[in-house]
Amino acid sequence: MKIVILGCGRVGATLATMMDREGHTVSVIDYSNEAFRRLEPDFGGTTVIGNGVDEEILIRAGIKEADAFAAVTNGDNRNIMASQIAKEIFNVKKVVCRIYDPIRQSTYNELGLEAICPTVIGAQMLFKALSSDKEHGKEAKE
Amino acid sequence: MKIVILGCGRVGATLATMMDREGHTVSVIDYSNEAFRRLEPDFGGTTVIGNGVDEEILIRAGIKEADAFAAVTNGDNRNIMASQIAKEIFNVKKVVCRIYDPIRQSTYNELGLEAICPTVIGAQMLFKALSSDKEHGKEAKE
Repeated sequence: MKIVILGCGRVGATLATMMDREGHTVSVIDYSNEAFRRLEPDFGGTTVIGNGVDEEILIRAGIKEADAFAAVTNGDNRNIMASQIAKEIFNVKKVVCRIYDPIRQSTYNELGLEAICPTVIGAQMLFKALSSDKEHGKEAKE
Repeated sequence: MKIVILGCGRVGATLATMMDREGHTVSVIDYSNEAFRRLEPDFGGTTVIGNGVDEEILIRAGIKEADAFAAVTNGDNRNIMASQIAKEIFNVKKVVCRIYDPIRQSTYNELGLEAICPTVIGAQMLFKALSSDKEHGKEAKE
């Protein structure tokens, strides 16, 4: 599978490494060259410096041939906008987007789009950990 | 259950609301008064302004009587330090901590302490979403 990842923060870099190790063709976009340092040394994909809502940059990252697109920058609006571009303009089949704001996420999901919200997930995991008496450390790593 | 939550960002505020609605006695600490705006209007717990690694502030928030403590500020080191204080000095039974950095998290877990890492969880969820063909939007909200 060919995948374009927008944002090389911790989540983007971890995801890029995971996908690369699974044998997928990975291309990562970030506006900062420094961000690519987060990639593992054995990362075999490509990196593109630039703004991910710029179509030229997306094309350079291979969006036209991509099977999947993940938007994981720190900006919710940027992620939403880039995901829409990937879906509507470049017809990427699989588009996922990270949205921090739970309200924006539910609106986004109502539009039939796919978003994950670490805020809600994080709170739920902490809630579960606090509500249980068992050792949770190992579970959280899974 | 009496719980003290350090950090009233999105995750802290969501967790505080969840615990409050479950009938727990919740106290939230943040150094910024503005942060408490994130709490739902029906939030019935208390708020304390101050630095969560300051024992006086923790005492004011009720750490001495607390059954649980959650450290969810944006700083990994602050969360780790506050969790240690809650556990070692105040003997809080249940202590959970959010750690963004996967390396710090695994060290922390190896010490037998409980931490959740939204970076790893987020990347895993995106990985799953990208690896499957089914609609993921609803699932992600659960």
